[in-house]
Amino acid sequence: MSDEIDTDTGTVYLVGSGPGDPSLLTVKATELIETADIVLHDKLPGPAIIESIPESKREDVGKRAGGERTSQEYTNHRLVELAEAGKTVVRLKGGDPFVFGRGGEEIEHLAASDIPFEIVPGITSAIGGPGVAGIPVTHREYASSVSFVTGHEDPTKDESAIDWGALAATGGTIVVLMGVGKLPAYAAELQDAGMDPETPIALVEQATRPSMQVAVGTLETAVNVRDEVGIEPPAITIIGEVATTREHVSHWLEQTPQHYFEQINTDEDS
Amino acid sequence: MSDEIDTDTGTVYLVGSGPGDPSLLTVKATELIETADIVLHDKLPGPAIIESIPESKREDVGKRAGGERTSQEYTNHRLVELAEAGKTVVRLKGGDPFVFGRGGEEIEHLAASDIPFEIVPGITSAIGGPGVAGIPVTHREYASSVSFVTGHEDPTKDESAIDWGALAATGGTIVVLMGVGKLPAYAAELQDAGMDPETPIALVEQATRPSMQVAVGTLETAVNVRDEVGIEPPAITIIGEVATTREHVSHWLEQTPQHYFEQINTDEDS
Repeated sequence: MSDEIDTDTGTVYLVGSGPGDPSLLTVKATELIETADIVLHDKLPGPAIIESIPESKREDVGKRAGGERTSQEYTNHRLVELAEAGKTVVRLKGGDPFVFGRGGEEIEHLAASDIPFEIVPGITSAIGGPGVAGIPVTHREYASSVSFVTGHEDPTKDESAIDWGALAATGGTIVVLMGVGKLPAYAAELQDAGMDPETPIALVEQATRPSMQVAVGTLETAVNVRDEVGIEPPAITIIGEVATTREHVSHWLEQTPQHYFEQINTDEDS
Repeated sequence: MSDEIDTDTGTVYLVGSGPGDPSLLTVKATELIETADIVLHDKLPGPAIIESIPESKREDVGKRAGGERTSQEYTNHRLVELAEAGKTVVRLKGGDPFVFGRGGEEIEHLAASDIPFEIVPGITSAIGGPGVAGIPVTHREYASSVSFVTGHEDPTKDESAIDWGALAATGGTIVVLMGVGKLPAYAAELQDAGMDPETPIALVEQATRPSMQVAVGTLETAVNVRDEVGIEPPAITIIGEVATTREHVSHWLEQTPQHYFEQINTDEDS
């Protein structure tokens, strides 16, 4: 079947950028960015990574000239147009392309348009973000599973597709991406579903970036600690016993030469 | 508080290796491996990555001289001993250190021993493995959440801590790491919990490595396709509608110059 694909057609590499620290790009991502004809990106990879790409090959599909947000349809169309013109294209996405990144839709569109492509995974901020803050998303003693959800669902859906009660019933860690704005709603839903209000939580903003901030509390105090520390998007919420690991280890974590961030632990402040 | 830590003490870097392709190491992991005095590893990073580390600085804590498996206690002790001797230590772990990797226990031990450390996340095979096979773990249309569990639980636990019924009730994708041996048990438990026997599944063995293999089927046929294709550990099981994405895209995925693997799709064979 290989003769179905025009050999003059370029390849699209769907590449994850990781959580924002350029040193957490993979070796392959770095090489592909170097050799690509063009890199299509939005704002999510973060300024440090975007600014490291030569300006001549950057194309921002996160906004249009007029300031409006680019539609997914435009991005899909542009990927195909560039590949058909024979370009080697990197489609650079924040975190991993397949964790709430609409990468699934992009590869379905590429396949339907006869464009060859490859997936280059990246570190999702849902794991790497808690990680650099000293929070393991699983722990042999108290988290046999971990579930990832987004706080920022498809606005065209009539009702939330997320069953917070079922997530609570798993007994595992829950990690909410883009979880700042709707924190009051899901913190309440989880408690209504029977989750202990004393369940530890942590919020990690701008994980792995110079302005990284961490706040810790409980399900009951979550909204207060968010506001006291001033956690703003993009941030991740970690719900479960694992969030307590940080307090056991943070002193030693912050001794290392390369640690990123201002740590703000509201439990210590109060 | 920084004067509490002896400045002659070395630092331990807990580093994720990613799923096995050396080009999926992060830039930071590569640099740390180059500059470290010693790299403690087990077999999980895989031969391509392990053999790229100079033999003079490799220490295998996955097995002891006598052929027995090294205990976690020994690894914990050895990390502290090396750091106290002033060494810069990389503790290299397969995938991400904090996804079923016992990384949480290792940092708690380091902190309790006054050893400074840092976390360097890696790509978990639970996301990158399905990804390179064309399977997004989330999808805007049919997976608002994804849960990760291990098929290989702590054998000292009396009963399974995994509530398969609750996982099924989330309605999201389920990814089982180390999920080959216990596939018959959890495939049955999920169906007993009411999950549709027609739910698509995929198994990905040796993800991102030259011997990568993929098998696809349904919850009902999962054990048969595992055996027909000959999927062996280490492998990941993906359960949910997202597993069907592969059949829409695999032809174009396999046209790229760098694709890894022999694809075996038992649905096409039969």
